[in-house]
Amino acid sequence: MEWAVSNVDEAPVRVDAEHLTVFVATALERLGLRPADARTVAEVMVEADRRGVESHGVAAMMSQVGYARMLREGRYEAQPEIRQVVDRAGISVWDGGGGFGMIVGVRAMRHALDRAAEHGVHIAIARNSRHFGMAGYYALMALERGMIGWASTNASPGVAPTFGREAVYGTNPIAFAAPAGSEEPFVLDMATSAVAFGKIGVYARHGRPIPLGWAGGPDGLPTADAHLALDTRVLMPLGSTPELSSYKGYGLAMLVEILCGALAGGPMMPPRGAPVSHFFLAIDPGQAVELADYEAQMDDLLLRLKASTPAEGAERVLVAGEREFAHRRDAVAHGIPLHPQIVADLNRLGGELGIGGMRVLGDE
Amino acid sequence: MEWAVSNVDEAPVRVDAEHLTVFVATALERLGLRPADARTVAEVMVEADRRGVESHGVAAMMSQVGYARMLREGRYEAQPEIRQVVDRAGISVWDGGGGFGMIVGVRAMRHALDRAAEHGVHIAIARNSRHFGMAGYYALMALERGMIGWASTNASPGVAPTFGREAVYGTNPIAFAAPAGSEEPFVLDMATSAVAFGKIGVYARHGRPIPLGWAGGPDGLPTADAHLALDTRVLMPLGSTPELSSYKGYGLAMLVEILCGALAGGPMMPPRGAPVSHFFLAIDPGQAVELADYEAQMDDLLLRLKASTPAEGAERVLVAGEREFAHRRDAVAHGIPLHPQIVADLNRLGGELGIGGMRVLGDE
Repeated sequence: MEWAVSNVDEAPVRVDAEHLTVFVATALERLGLRPADARTVAEVMVEADRRGVESHGVAAMMSQVGYARMLREGRYEAQPEIRQVVDRAGISVWDGGGGFGMIVGVRAMRHALDRAAEHGVHIAIARNSRHFGMAGYYALMALERGMIGWASTNASPGVAPTFGREAVYGTNPIAFAAPAGSEEPFVLDMATSAVAFGKIGVYARHGRPIPLGWAGGPDGLPTADAHLALDTRVLMPLGSTPELSSYKGYGLAMLVEILCGALAGGPMMPPRGAPVSHFFLAIDPGQAVELADYEAQMDDLLLRLKASTPAEGAERVLVAGEREFAHRRDAVAHGIPLHPQIVADLNRLGGELGIGGMRVLGDE
Repeated sequence: MEWAVSNVDEAPVRVDAEHLTVFVATALERLGLRPADARTVAEVMVEADRRGVESHGVAAMMSQVGYARMLREGRYEAQPEIRQVVDRAGISVWDGGGGFGMIVGVRAMRHALDRAAEHGVHIAIARNSRHFGMAGYYALMALERGMIGWASTNASPGVAPTFGREAVYGTNPIAFAAPAGSEEPFVLDMATSAVAFGKIGVYARHGRPIPLGWAGGPDGLPTADAHLALDTRVLMPLGSTPELSSYKGYGLAMLVEILCGALAGGPMMPPRGAPVSHFFLAIDPGQAVELADYEAQMDDLLLRLKASTPAEGAERVLVAGEREFAHRRDAVAHGIPLHPQIVADLNRLGGELGIGGMRVLGDE
């Protein structure tokens, strides 16, 4: 049994995190962003790489999502005006000005945390926004404040509903972080689809069939053909098939769609190129219960899960976030591991923008 | 493809809803409940039967959950003292006094709705409680107020984490209701396990193998043997297997566990017989966006989903709650359908408590 398939086929090279952040931020500035915004966007991407979430890391500058292309084609507003349009005790609404979701996202989540510190809970909605990177970033922001955080976004179509064959909604992620006491925090960051396209791409490159239930063929039924799945581009909801309760994954995706899109005033299930909306929730556990009691309960939960008997052939039970924290410790100690192709792509972009190439650790 | 397998093997009989409510409430009074509390508990059960959620309907009086037994054995406090122990703008905490979760649940959710009407959002936590019936009931309460509602609870062990073989946590449901405009509301009410035990029982009675991924055998690996699954009593998380991303279903169950148990100050993953905790969330969409815009977006979402192209062999795409609303319309028009065995069991209970038998529609 495998937890996940790595996207990295070749041995990674290591890059200093601050150097990488400055490099990406400088590239974003050359592409039109204000310096402070460029730094924010770069930090969200680099944190994804620190945690091993390559799909939302600096590769997004050039990959299919293609931030550089979005900026060059004017499809992302480079210098968005961020406006707070609703300011209530429990709810705020933000307009992202059509720019990177990281810019409005970090501001909205910070505000949610400030307000939750006063009232116990706050919801911040961001509308008229663009891709916000790794959803987990915003949930993780809560941990520094000793709070519980939730971040979600709607997204362009990629997933078919149960009984459907068309990709009508997005991978609509749920990221949820909760601090513990002496244990590492619980950090869940998941798409509500069965898997992401990136994982299917890895199987296609290796010539392996994909498990039935990851993606549909043109008839809307599960396919094992990775190449057909990439051509069709229709993921299945978490739960995969009706008999394994895919209506639940589909329902959770709609829960996210409603919290993001409907509370933002639309659009729902935004077509490719349309603005997206984000949902941020902050809860201050210390306002419900003594913080020491909360922390003791969290530690008890996490320790009991890790100590529970593994299934035949499995090593042990993991908790959400464990793998990413381990990856992060390694990246902090030894530099951020990047696929050589990503470094080559970034260097080409750096060349185009006149900022040269990246320094790789061990190169000196 | 089938959406669900009915628990009803024999043709149901029909019972008048108000008659059933009074019958069950009277039985609960004879078992020690105060009249108002008995009515509340009965109403939650009868609403489950109205919506076709038999597992949380009046059958729970005598089934494995066995409310009558719990009361007779003093394991549920018949006349709990409900206390509000935290009263903040955004968060309230309630002590259920060890009684039926419906009693504290209805009060806590009503309070959450009142507070959300003032501040936009409110979270109510109930601790020291017992089984609260159908989670959807509390989420549905939000619809009458034009609000979005969420209800969850932790529960005694029945599900194994990914890579585990022991049932260490409960079916930890997520119920989420959101009003629409002219369309019926969106109502998701799901266990975070792949399925519930009731569904496996139906397969066992019919001698059918269960799909791999519903439940584990003693080795923690998926079994197709319905009888073995019922003996082992270890459900799998939504997602079923590691390769179909069961860590997501497991993670969502822990999200529920944290929102309920940790915010209540424990216990986490309560063992059978221990008190459970509930989480209620109310959001007033009219405080984020013009209500007319919210409703228009919801209608757009639901209509586009229903109109999307079905998969090969499927009739059409459904939205969460559709089936239950259809069941409810039928039950309101023709009486509540109950399995004859449930009616027989209730009549036996009525005999024991000296309140006689139930009147069945069409019997006159």
